[in-house]
Amino acid sequence: MPGQLKRDVQQANLLLARYGLVTLTWGNVSGIDRLKGRIVIKPSGVDYDVMTADDMVVVDLDGRVVDGHLRPSSDTPTHVELYKAFPNVGGIVHTHSTYATIFAQACREIPCLGTTHADHFSGPVPVTRFLTAEEVHAGYERETGKIIIERMAGLDPSSMPAVLVAGHAPFVWGKSAAEAVRNSLILERVAEMALGSFQLKPDVPAIPSHIQEKHYQRKHGPKAYYGQDKA
Amino acid sequence: MPGQLKRDVQQANLLLARYGLVTLTWGNVSGIDRLKGRIVIKPSGVDYDVMTADDMVVVDLDGRVVDGHLRPSSDTPTHVELYKAFPNVGGIVHTHSTYATIFAQACREIPCLGTTHADHFSGPVPVTRFLTAEEVHAGYERETGKIIIERMAGLDPSSMPAVLVAGHAPFVWGKSAAEAVRNSLILERVAEMALGSFQLKPDVPAIPSHIQEKHYQRKHGPKAYYGQDKA
Amino acid sequence: MPGQLKRDVQQANLLLARYGLVTLTWGNVSGIDRLKGRIVIKPSGVDYDVMTADDMVVVDLDGRVVDGHLRPSSDTPTHVELYKAFPNVGGIVHTHSTYATIFAQACREIPCLGTTHADHFSGPVPVTRFLTAEEVHAGYERETGKIIIERMAGLDPSSMPAVLVAGHAPFVWGKSAAEAVRNSLILERVAEMALGSFQLKPDVPAIPSHIQEKHYQRKHGPKAYYGQDKA
Amino acid sequence: MPGQLKRDVQQANLLLARYGLVTLTWGNVSGIDRLKGRIVIKPSGVDYDVMTADDMVVVDLDGRVVDGHLRPSSDTPTHVELYKAFPNVGGIVHTHSTYATIFAQACREIPCLGTTHADHFSGPVPVTRFLTAEEVHAGYERETGKIIIERMAGLDPSSMPAVLVAGHAPFVWGKSAAEAVRNSLILERVAEMALGSFQLKPDVPAIPSHIQEKHYQRKHGPKAYYGQDKA
Repeated sequence: MPGQLKRDVQQANLLLARYGLVTLTWGNVSGIDRLKGRIVIKPSGVDYDVMTADDMVVVDLDGRVVDGHLRPSSDTPTHVELYKAFPNVGGIVHTHSTYATIFAQACREIPCLGTTHADHFSGPVPVTRFLTAEEVHAGYERETGKIIIERMAGLDPSSMPAVLVAGHAPFVWGKSAAEAVRNSLILERVAEMALGSFQLKPDVPAIPSHIQEKHYQRKHGPKAYYGQDKA
Repeated sequence: MPGQLKRDVQQANLLLARYGLVTLTWGNVSGIDRLKGRIVIKPSGVDYDVMTADDMVVVDLDGRVVDGHLRPSSDTPTHVELYKAFPNVGGIVHTHSTYATIFAQACREIPCLGTTHADHFSGPVPVTRFLTAEEVHAGYERETGKIIIERMAGLDPSSMPAVLVAGHAPFVWGKSAAEAVRNSLILERVAEMALGSFQLKPDVPAIPSHIQEKHYQRKHGPKAYYGQDKA
Repeated sequence: MPGQLKRDVQQANLLLARYGLVTLTWGNVSGIDRLKGRIVIKPSGVDYDVMTADDMVVVDLDGRVVDGHLRPSSDTPTHVELYKAFPNVGGIVHTHSTYATIFAQACREIPCLGTTHADHFSGPVPVTRFLTAEEVHAGYERETGKIIIERMAGLDPSSMPAVLVAGHAPFVWGKSAAEAVRNSLILERVAEMALGSFQLKPDVPAIPSHIQEKHYQRKHGPKAYYGQDKA
Repeated sequence: MPGQLKRDVQQANLLLARYGLVTLTWGNVSGIDRLKGRIVIKPSGVDYDVMTADDMVVVDLDGRVVDGHLRPSSDTPTHVELYKAFPNVGGIVHTHSTYATIFAQACREIPCLGTTHADHFSGPVPVTRFLTAEEVHAGYERETGKIIIERMAGLDPSSMPAVLVAGHAPFVWGKSAAEAVRNSLILERVAEMALGSFQLKPDVPAIPSHIQEKHYQRKHGPKAYYGQDKA
C-alpha cells in the first residue's frame, strides 16, 4: 500500500514536470493514505529527471519522517495542515506555475470569466492574505497552511480545489495526487486566459451565474453527464 | 464508409492535440456523412493518447447514438444543430484554445486586422450573446447551437467558418473534419496576433476592405490562385 | 548549380518551419542565381513535411516558370520585384510570424530598443503604407514589392534586411536564403521583446545612437570582431 | 583540470540552449580556475549544436588567449572584469533571454514581487546606466563590465547574482558555470512573472520584507533547510 502510494505520488510529480508546470526542482506533490495516517511527499530539491518512487518520503500527520532516505519537501508542514483540515482531499500540489503565480503576485483572485473556469472551479479562485512577521517567525510553512484554511472558510474544498497564496503561488488539491496535478494544469490555463481577457477588457465581468452553475454541475454535480465514469 | 469517417474523425481529433489546441480531454471534432444522415463524434472525456477510431461514436441527426461503445461528447447536441442549419459543413470542431477563448471571454469579436485573417475569414469573427437561464434550463447544448445559428444570420458559414460563444469558447467548421481542425488552428493564430496588435495600439482599425477582399478571393474565390488544387 | 540552389532553398524552407516561424503552409523562401538570372522558390500551399528539393520551382526575372512541376508561391511577383531592386540580396523570406505580424498589423515600426536589435538592424524596422484599391487591382503581389521598394528609399537593404508590410506581415532578406531565414528569426525575437518593453513602459525610447552604432559595427562593420569568419 | 573546466563550461553552454535561453549563437558561459588564473569561455559565434569541449577558449586574467583554436566570445572582456571584481564568482552567463531583456530594454529593475524571486535574489534585480560615447569608444566590453561593477556597489554578488545592462540584456553569475546557468533560467522566469503581474496591477508592490527575508534565508542562509545538501 505505501509502495503503491509512493509510485502514484512519484508519477504525479513526473506529470507535473511533463505538463510544464515546474522549473528546475520547484513544485511538489503529495498523497495521503487516510487509513494509515501516512502522507507520501516529494523529497526537497531533487531533480525530476532522476526521481524514483523509492525517493518519496513518508511522514505522519505531525509531519515527522517515518520512512525514506531523503529530506521531505520544505513545504511538508503546509501539506500536513491542509490534509488535517480538508478530510476529503487525497492529494496536494504546490507549484510556481507562471500564470497562477502572476495572479498570486498581484494578489488578485481569478474571477470566473468563462466556462473553462466554471467547469472546474465553483466561483472565483481565492487569494490569501500575507503572513505577519510573527507568523513567519512562528513557523512559516505551517502558518502558510493555516492562512489557506482561514481563507477557505465558507468554501467547499471539493468544489474549490485551489487557492493562491498572496505574493507566493498556488496550492491545489484533489481526490488523488493525479487529480490534484490535473487541477493544477487547469488552474494554469484558466489563469492564462483570464490574464488575456483582462488585457482585452480590463473590466470584464464574470459570466452569468446560471451558466457558471450549469457548467460546474454538468461535470461535477449529482447528475453529471461529462466523461465516461458517471452513469 | 462509416469506418473511413471514423478514421478521419479520429485523425482530426489527434491533429487537434498535435496542434496544441487542447488541454487534457477538452475539445472535440465531428464529421458528417450527409447521404447516410450519420454524424461521427469524439467520445466524452477520453484521453487523446489512447483514443482509437473504434472509440468514435455514431449518432443520427436527432443526436441519438446508433453505433459505438462509449458516450458521445457532451457537446453533441450543439454539433447536431449546426449540421442541420449549415448544409455545406462537413466537419465541426469545438476547443477552448487559449487565444480564441480569451476573446470569447471578453465578448469581443475579432476584427480583420491583417491579411492572415483576411485569407481565411471574411469579416470580423462574430460573438454570440449569452444564453438566458431559461435557455440553459431548456437544453444547454442544443440552445448553444441555436444562438450560434442566430448569430450567423446574414453570414455565410462557408466564408465565416468560426464563431465565439460568449463567455465560453470557439466553434469552428469546414468542408471536412480535417479542414475544421485547420480552421481552428488559423483562428487561434489570428486571435493571438489580434491580442498583440491591440496591446500595441488599442484602437487599431481593420485593414482596408479592398485588401480584405483581395486576400479572401485569392485563396477562396472562383479565381483563387493559392495552392496547387485550383486550375 | 540549380540543383544546389534548389537544395539550399528547400533546406531554408525547412529551417523556417523548424524555427517555429510558420503555421501550416504559410511562408515562403526563395534564393537567386544572379549569373543565370534564375530564382528558386517554394511551391504554393505545399506542406513543409513532404516538401522535397525537387518540388522547388524555378522562375526567371519576369516571374515566368522555367522549371518545376508545381505552381510557385503566390507571392513570387513580390520576390521578383525585390531581387530586381536590391542587387546584393541572395535570398528572400516571407512569413506571418507572430510578433513581427503583430507590429505590421498595428502599422508600427519597431524602434531600436536594445542591442539585440542593434546587432542586426541599423535603425528602426520600417513599415510600408497600404496599397490603394487601384494598386491591388493592377497586380497585388507585384505592387506589394513596389511599396516595399518605395519604403526602403534612402535605406540600405544590407543594413536593414527587413520591412513590415502594413496590415500584412514581414518580408526579410539576406545574402543567401539561409541568412534570410536567420534574419527572420532575429526579427521575430526583436519584435517579441519590443512588444514586452512597450508593455512595461509605453514611451520607452530607442537606445543611444552611439550604442546602436557600436553594436551594428562590431557584428557587421569593416572591423567586425564577432564570430569566427572575419580576420 | 583545464580539461574538466572545459567540459563543465561546454556542458553549461549546452544547458543554456536546452533551457531555451538562447537564439542562434547568442549568449555565452564562462568558468574560472582561480588557482591557475585561467578563464574558460565559449568561442564567438559558434553553433550550440556542434560545439565541443575542445572548442572552448582559455584566456588569462588580462583576457589574452592562452589556449584554443577559436576566437573567444566578443564579451570576454566583460567576463574578465567581473571575475576580477567578484572574487567568489566561479561562473558567468550572458544571454539575451526574452523576458530579462524586456526589462533591460525598458531600463526597469525587477522588484521582488513574489517568493520565487525572494528564493534566489535578495532585493530588486538592478539595472545599470547606459555607457557614454567615450566609454564605448574606450573599450565597449570592458566598460560594460565596469558599469556592472559600479551598479553592484553596496550589493553582495553572492545574494544578487544578476544585473540588467540598460538597453542590452542580463549578466548572471554563480559559484560555478552550471549554477550561473540555473540562475539565468530563474531570472528569466522571475522576469516573465513580474511582467505578467505588472499587466494585472501596474502598481503592484514588493512583497513584505519579512517574507522576502524568510524565503531567501530558507534556501541560502546559514540555517537553510531547502534541498538535500545542507545538514
